[in-house]
Amino acid sequence: MTSPHQRPLFRPSVSSRLSIAISTHSAEAGEAQHEDGEQIDEEIEEIRRYEDFTTIDWVQDAARAQLQRRIQKRKEGYYVRTNWRRKLWLSYDAGQAWIVISLIGVCIGLNASFLNIVTEWLSDIKLGHCSTAFYLNENFCCWGAEDGCPEWKTWSTVWPVNYLLYILFSILFAYTSAILVKSFAPYAAGSGISEIKCILAGFVMKGFLSGWTLLIKSIGLPLAIASGLSVGKEGPSVHYAVCTGNVISRFFEKYRKNAAKTREILSACAAAGVAVAFGSPIGGVLFSLEEMSSNFPLKTMWRSYFCALVATAVLAAMNPFRTGQLVMFQVTYDRDWHFFEVVFFIIIGIFGGLYGEFVIKWNLRAQSFRKKYLKQWAIAEATFLAGITAVICYSNMFLRIDMTESMEILFHECEGGHDYNGLCESSRRWHMVTSLTFATVVRVFLVIISYGCKVPAGIFVPSMAIGASFGRTVGILVQALHEAVPNSRFFASCEPDMPCITPGTYAFLGAAAALSGIMHITVSVVVIMFELTGALTYILPTMIVVGVTKAVSDRFGKAGIADRMIWFNGFPFLDNKEDHSFGVPVSHVMNQELTVLPSTGMAIREVETILESTEFQGFPIVQDRNSKLLIGYINRTELKYGIDRAKRERTIPPTSRCYFLAPDQTQTPASTVGMTIASSRPFSSGSSSLSLDFARYIDPTPLTVHPRLPLETVMEIFKKVGPRVMLVEHRGKLSGVVTRKDVLKFQFKVENRENPRDDSAEVGREEKLWGIIVRVSLWLRRKVLRQEAPPAGERIRESDAQDGLLDVEASSMDLELGERR
Amino acid sequence: MTSPHQRPLFRPSVSSRLSIAISTHSAEAGEAQHEDGEQIDEEIEEIRRYEDFTTIDWVQDAARAQLQRRIQKRKEGYYVRTNWRRKLWLSYDAGQAWIVISLIGVCIGLNASFLNIVTEWLSDIKLGHCSTAFYLNENFCCWGAEDGCPEWKTWSTVWPVNYLLYILFSILFAYTSAILVKSFAPYAAGSGISEIKCILAGFVMKGFLSGWTLLIKSIGLPLAIASGLSVGKEGPSVHYAVCTGNVISRFFEKYRKNAAKTREILSACAAAGVAVAFGSPIGGVLFSLEEMSSNFPLKTMWRSYFCALVATAVLAAMNPFRTGQLVMFQVTYDRDWHFFEVVFFIIIGIFGGLYGEFVIKWNLRAQSFRKKYLKQWAIAEATFLAGITAVICYSNMFLRIDMTESMEILFHECEGGHDYNGLCESSRRWHMVTSLTFATVVRVFLVIISYGCKVPAGIFVPSMAIGASFGRTVGILVQALHEAVPNSRFFASCEPDMPCITPGTYAFLGAAAALSGIMHITVSVVVIMFELTGALTYILPTMIVVGVTKAVSDRFGKAGIADRMIWFNGFPFLDNKEDHSFGVPVSHVMNQELTVLPSTGMAIREVETILESTEFQGFPIVQDRNSKLLIGYINRTELKYGIDRAKRERTIPPTSRCYFLAPDQTQTPASTVGMTIASSRPFSSGSSSLSLDFARYIDPTPLTVHPRLPLETVMEIFKKVGPRVMLVEHRGKLSGVVTRKDVLKFQFKVENRENPRDDSAEVGREEKLWGIIVRVSLWLRRKVLRQEAPPAGERIRESDAQDGLLDVEASSMDLELGERR
Repeated sequence: MTSPHQRPLFRPSVSSRLSIAISTHSAEAGEAQHEDGEQIDEEIEEIRRYEDFTTIDWVQDAARAQLQRRIQKRKEGYYVRTNWRRKLWLSYDAGQAWIVISLIGVCIGLNASFLNIVTEWLSDIKLGHCSTAFYLNENFCCWGAEDGCPEWKTWSTVWPVNYLLYILFSILFAYTSAILVKSFAPYAAGSGISEIKCILAGFVMKGFLSGWTLLIKSIGLPLAIASGLSVGKEGPSVHYAVCTGNVISRFFEKYRKNAAKTREILSACAAAGVAVAFGSPIGGVLFSLEEMSSNFPLKTMWRSYFCALVATAVLAAMNPFRTGQLVMFQVTYDRDWHFFEVVFFIIIGIFGGLYGEFVIKWNLRAQSFRKKYLKQWAIAEATFLAGITAVICYSNMFLRIDMTESMEILFHECEGGHDYNGLCESSRRWHMVTSLTFATVVRVFLVIISYGCKVPAGIFVPSMAIGASFGRTVGILVQALHEAVPNSRFFASCEPDMPCITPGTYAFLGAAAALSGIMHITVSVVVIMFELTGALTYILPTMIVVGVTKAVSDRFGKAGIADRMIWFNGFPFLDNKEDHSFGVPVSHVMNQELTVLPSTGMAIREVETILESTEFQGFPIVQDRNSKLLIGYINRTELKYGIDRAKRERTIPPTSRCYFLAPDQTQTPASTVGMTIASSRPFSSGSSSLSLDFARYIDPTPLTVHPRLPLETVMEIFKKVGPRVMLVEHRGKLSGVVTRKDVLKFQFKVENRENPRDDSAEVGREEKLWGIIVRVSLWLRRKVLRQEAPPAGERIRESDAQDGLLDVEASSMDLELGERR
Repeated sequence: MTSPHQRPLFRPSVSSRLSIAISTHSAEAGEAQHEDGEQIDEEIEEIRRYEDFTTIDWVQDAARAQLQRRIQKRKEGYYVRTNWRRKLWLSYDAGQAWIVISLIGVCIGLNASFLNIVTEWLSDIKLGHCSTAFYLNENFCCWGAEDGCPEWKTWSTVWPVNYLLYILFSILFAYTSAILVKSFAPYAAGSGISEIKCILAGFVMKGFLSGWTLLIKSIGLPLAIASGLSVGKEGPSVHYAVCTGNVISRFFEKYRKNAAKTREILSACAAAGVAVAFGSPIGGVLFSLEEMSSNFPLKTMWRSYFCALVATAVLAAMNPFRTGQLVMFQVTYDRDWHFFEVVFFIIIGIFGGLYGEFVIKWNLRAQSFRKKYLKQWAIAEATFLAGITAVICYSNMFLRIDMTESMEILFHECEGGHDYNGLCESSRRWHMVTSLTFATVVRVFLVIISYGCKVPAGIFVPSMAIGASFGRTVGILVQALHEAVPNSRFFASCEPDMPCITPGTYAFLGAAAALSGIMHITVSVVVIMFELTGALTYILPTMIVVGVTKAVSDRFGKAGIADRMIWFNGFPFLDNKEDHSFGVPVSHVMNQELTVLPSTGMAIREVETILESTEFQGFPIVQDRNSKLLIGYINRTELKYGIDRAKRERTIPPTSRCYFLAPDQTQTPASTVGMTIASSRPFSSGSSSLSLDFARYIDPTPLTVHPRLPLETVMEIFKKVGPRVMLVEHRGKLSGVVTRKDVLKFQFKVENRENPRDDSAEVGREEKLWGIIVRVSLWLRRKVLRQEAPPAGERIRESDAQDGLLDVEASSMDLELGERR
C-alpha cells in the first residue's frame, strides 16, 4: 500500500529545503543559491523584528531556529579551522547562554543594590539629613548606634516645619518621577508584570523592554517609593530586570534572531528580578514559574535558577544594607506554634482572600476612571496622590515610616528587646489595635487609588504591609484573649505562666495571606516568606494560611491582579490557568470570510491591493478560489519582502502574474528539489508579461485542524504548541482560519453572555465623581492661583494625539478590534 | 466567500453529538437514544480500563471528559431536586476533589508515621531490646536520657554474639522483604519513580498502583531499610503515596472515568510522598514538578500543594519522632559562610556531578547483569546483599548506624556539645578522615550493587549519606588547613582566634550535591535541603554547589537515574527535557504500511480478521482503499465493542457489511444530526444481508498533520497536547500514521547512529563474573550444605515463565518491539 504521493511526501519542508540541496547538488551552484537564501532569510528576520503589536508564531520560530542551526553548521564547514580554535569556538558557542545570563545577573544585582541604597537615602532625606556627610542615610550616618545619633539631624526642631518639608519632599519626588516617565519612557509606568506576561507569551511590544525604559524605571522607582506613595518595588524590579535582559541579549546574534531563546532569557530575568527585590532566589524562580511564564520547560527553570543565583550573589556581595543579610527583615521566632492557633490562621487566610478580591475590584474601577478622565493629568495625579498620602500618613506611626521598615517592626517577636513605640507593652494594647486598624484601612484605600498611577509602582510590598498590620492586630487580640482567660481549655496546650502567643508571627502570616490574595500565587509566596524571614518552623502555618486564602480567592474569580489587568487592557493573552468547556467545534469560531491567494494567475497589482486593503498577518494559499484546495500559507512580511525584492531587481509591470506554488506543485512532474530552488528565485520571464514565483516564501505545512475538532483541543494547541494561526481544513479544502484572537473573542463573548454586566450605574457614578473633581479643581485654581484658566472641562474632552502615555492600551485595544491575523 | 461545506461543518464532533441532539429533538426520542449512548459510553469506558501497557490518548480523554460533564448536567435536569439539595449536591461535586485529596493526604501522613516508627524499632532491635517493653525503640525506651539507659539492653555482653545477631537480623529482614515482594507484589520492588513518571505521562501499567502493591511496599520498606541495605525510603515513599492516591480515587466515579483528573491526583500524591519522606512539603511539590510530571499545570501545582500540606500536617500531628520536628535533623549554624569558601564549594559540587555519573553508569551495568543472570535469584540476592552489607558495615562507625542518623551527626556543627565518637576532636582528625573516606567508598560500592535489587529501595538517602561523608571529609581538611596557616591571606576574612570553618556545613552541602548529581534536579534539592535543616543563611552556598553539580552532570548526559532507568527498561516515554534537532519531516518517521478500513463495503468477517491479525490500537478509516480519502479513526476498543454489541443483540451473518461513515458522510444529502444518530444504532437491516453502521464509534476529527511538517513540531504536539496517534494527511488523503513509539524508535536509531556502542567486551566481562558466581555458589553448596544439588548452571538457563518479577520489563520490551498503536 504505497501512497501515490510518496515521492513528493519525502520532500523536506520549507525550513529544511535549503540544507538538503547541499547534498544533492554540486557545491558551487548550491552555495550560490544558499547565500541567496540566507540573505533572504536574514533580511526577512530584520524586517520582522520591527513589527509591533503582533504575536510571535512559536512554531515558525522553532522552524527558523532549526534552519539557523543548520546554516551555522554549514558555515563552520567553510572555515577550516585549526582544531583547537574550532574547539574554542564551539565551547564559546555552547557556553554563550551562560555568559549572557551571568552578565545579565551581574547587572541586575548591581542595579538592585544601587536602587536599595538610593531608595533608603531618599526616604531618610524626607525626615532629616546627615550632618557629617549629606550622602549618607540615617543607618550609615549613625552606624552602630541604636535609635539615632547626634550626627543625624531632623530638618527643624519645630514639627510643623518637618511635616511641611516631609510633604514637600514627597510631592517633589513624585513629580520628578512622573515627569521623567511621561517625557522619556511612558512604558516605565506601573508595575509591568501584566505586559511582561504577554511578552513572554509571544506578544511583541516594541519599546516596552528598551534601554530607555530600563533607565527611567531605575531612576523613577526610588523616587516613587521614597515619595511615600503606597507602591512597592517588586513589580518594577521584574520589569527592569527583564529590560536588562532584553538590552544585553540584543548584543548577541543568537538571541537577536531567536524569539524562543530570548524568551528563556527573559523568563530567567523575571526570576532574578523577584530574587533581588526580596533577596529570595528560589522564590524568584518559583514566581517566574507560577505567575510569569506561560511556557516554562526545565531548561528555563535552570536558566532562571542560575540568573537568580548570580544576581542575588552580586547583591549579597555588594551588601547594600551592611547587615550581611540580603533582606532587611530576617526574624527568628523562639516559640513554636500550637494547633489551636489554626483557628486564627484561618481567619487571617480569609482576610487575605477578601482583601485581594476587594482591592482588585476597586483598583480596576479606579483604573477605568483613570483611563477615561485622567489621561492627560498623569503628572498632576501622581503628585496629588503623593501629597495626600504624605498628609494622611504622617500622623500614624505605622504609615509614616517606610513599608519595609514597618513590616520588619511588625514581624518581630516581643522578646529580645525589640520594641517600637510601645508595640509590645500590654498597657498600650488598645491604642495599638486602633492605630493598626487605622493603618490597615487607610493603606487599603491608598493602594486602591495609587496602584496604576503613572510612576513605577508595584503592589507586592503595600499588600504585605497591609497584611502585616492586620495580622498584628489579630495577634494582639489573641494575646489579650489568652492573658484574659489563660486557664481556658482552648489554651490548654500553652505552658502556664509563659507567653504563649507571638503576635509577630500573625503579622508574618498576614503578609503572606495578603500577598497571596492579591497575586493568586501559592507556592512562591510560601517560599518567598520563608526566604525573607527564615521562619522554618512556621512553614505549615504559612501553607495553611496561603491555602485558605487561595480557596477564598477562587470563590470570587480565578485570576490575580496581573491577569485582570491583562483582560482589562485587552491584550491577546490565552490564559493557561483556566479550563474551558464551550462544547462547540472550531468551525463555530473560525473566520470564514477569508482573503485567500489563488496559487496561479493573480496579477501583482491585485496582490498589492490585497496587501494594502487588509491588515491580516498572512494569507492562506489555495489552488484556485473555487476548489479551495489548500496549498500553504504566506506571511505578510514574506510576501511584501518578496515583492519589494523583485521590484528592486527589475521593473515589474503591474500585470505580472504571481505564482504561489509549494515546491511539489510545480507542473513539470520531473521537477526536483534543485529545480524548485532554481525556480524559487524571485522572478523568471516566461511569457510576454513577467511571472513571479513566490515558492521560496511559502510555508507549505501550516498547522491544520478539522472543522469539527472541539474548540478546547484547538485552544490547547494554541496554548501549548503556540502557533499564531491555524487553518481549518476539511478533506484538503480550506474552510476557515482561526487565530488566538478569534478564540479570545469567542471566550469573551461567552463570558459576557454568562455574566451580563450592567455598568450604567457605575458610569453615572464615575461621571459624578469627575464632575466633583473638575469643580473642585476649578475652584482651587480660581482661589489659589487667582488666574484665568481655560475651563478644565473643555480641555479634558479634547483628545490629545501626542499623548504617549496610553499608547499601550490604545494600541492593544486596536488590536482587539482590528483584524490582524 | 462561504464554503460549500459550511452546513456540515457546523455539525458537532463525535463527543458533542449527543448533547446537541437534546436540543434539536423531541425529548422522548432523544432521551431513549441518550441512555443508549450513555450506556455505550460507560461500557466502553469499563473495557478501556483494563487495557494494560497502552498509552492514554489525552486528547480523546479530554473529549470524553467534556462529554461526561454534559451528561452530568443533563442528568441533573432530570431529578428536579429541591433547591437546597441541589445546591448541596453541586457543592459536594465541586468540593469532591478537595475531599479526595484530603483523604489521600491523611492516609499518606498516617502511613508515613507508621513507617517511621516501625523502621526505627526494627533498626534498633538489631542492636538490642528494651527490657521494660519490647515494642519500644531505644529513643522511647530511654526517653529523656542521653546516650542510652539501663533499660535498653544489647543482646549480649560479648561483642561477637552481637555482631552475629546483627548480621542475622539483617539477613532475616532482607529475606522477609524480598519474599513478600516476590510472592505478593512484584511491582513493589525497587523505587518506582521511573515507572510513575511513565504512568503520569499516560502509560497504563495495571497493578503497579494496586492495593496489594501499596500493602507490600508499606510492609517491605521498613524491613528493607532496617536490614541495613544501602537503600533509602524516598523513592518508595513516592510509590506508596501514589498507590494510596490511586486506590482511594478509584472509589470516586469522577476519577475512575477520567485519566486526566486521575493524573492530577497522582501528581499531587507524588508531591506528598516526598513531602512526608523528607518532612519537606514545598520540596515535595517542586520535586513532583521538576522530576515526576511531564504535564504540570498550575491546577496540579495547587493540588500538590494541598496534598503535601495535609500529609505533612498529619505527620506533624502524629509526631513520630516525638521531637516536635518533622525530620530528624534540624540543624542551626551559628556562623555565616565566607566568600573564600566558594572554592571548596565548587570542589563539592564537582564531586556531586562525578558521583552521579559514576553511580548511574555502574548501577545500570549492575542492573543489566541482574536482568540477565539473577532473574530467579532475587530473594537470594537481596539476602546475600544484606549479609555482606552487615558484615562490612559493622566495623565502621559511620556505616554501622542508620543513614539518616549518620547524616544528622555529620551535619552538626561542633559547637554546642554535639559530638560523636570524637568527630570534633582535632587530635582524632586523621582517624576521622580515613574513616569517612572508607565510609564514602564502601557506600558508593554498596549503592551501586544494592539499588535495583528486588526489595523496596530508594537512592536518595544513600546518595545524601555519601555526599555528607565526603563533604565532612573536605570540611575537616579545610579546618585543618585553616588551623595550620591561620594567618594566610586566603583566610583573611576569618576572625582571628575563633573557629572559622564549620565542617558540618560541608557535609550538608555534600549531601545536596550528591542528591542533585544522582537525580539531576536543582531547585527541589535546594528547597528540600533548606526545609530539612532550616539553614537559611546557606541558601547561596547550596545554590552554588547544586549549580556546579548540575553543570558537571550536564557534561556527561542530560538525564538522572530515573530517566536512564526509563530508557533502560524501554518504556514509551517522550522526555520533556530534551531538545531535538533531527531535520527530517514527519513523513520520514511515519508508518506507511497501514491497515485501514474502507468506509463502505467491508464484510464483518474481514473486519474481525483484521482485529485478530493485528495489534494496532486503532484504525484509520478511508473512503476507499484507492482514493485513501481520510474519514476518521476508530479505536480497537470501540470497534470490538461495537461488533460484540451487535452480536449480542442479534445473530450477525459473517457477510454483513460494515459501514464506517462519519455522520456528515451519509449518502442522503438531507440527512440531519437526528438521522445520523438514528442510523448510528448498531445495525439496520437494509438488503438481504445485514448492514452494520459503526458511525457511533468513529472519531471523525483525529489530529492530522502535513507529511512535510518538521518532526520536531510533531514531537512538540505529542509531548504537550498528548495524542496517542496522529494521522498524516496530504490534501485530504491519508498517507501515514505516526505514534509516539514511532518517534521514539526513530530517536533511538539516530542516537545509536551518533554514538555507536560496542559492548561485546562488557558482555564478556559479565559472563566471566557470572561464571565465578556460579562456581563459588556450587562450591559453597557442596562444602557447607553437603547435599546433592542440581548443577546451578543448568537451572539458571531455564526460563521460568511463572516468574512475575520481571514482568514489567518483559512486557515493556514487547511493547517496544511490538506494533500496538
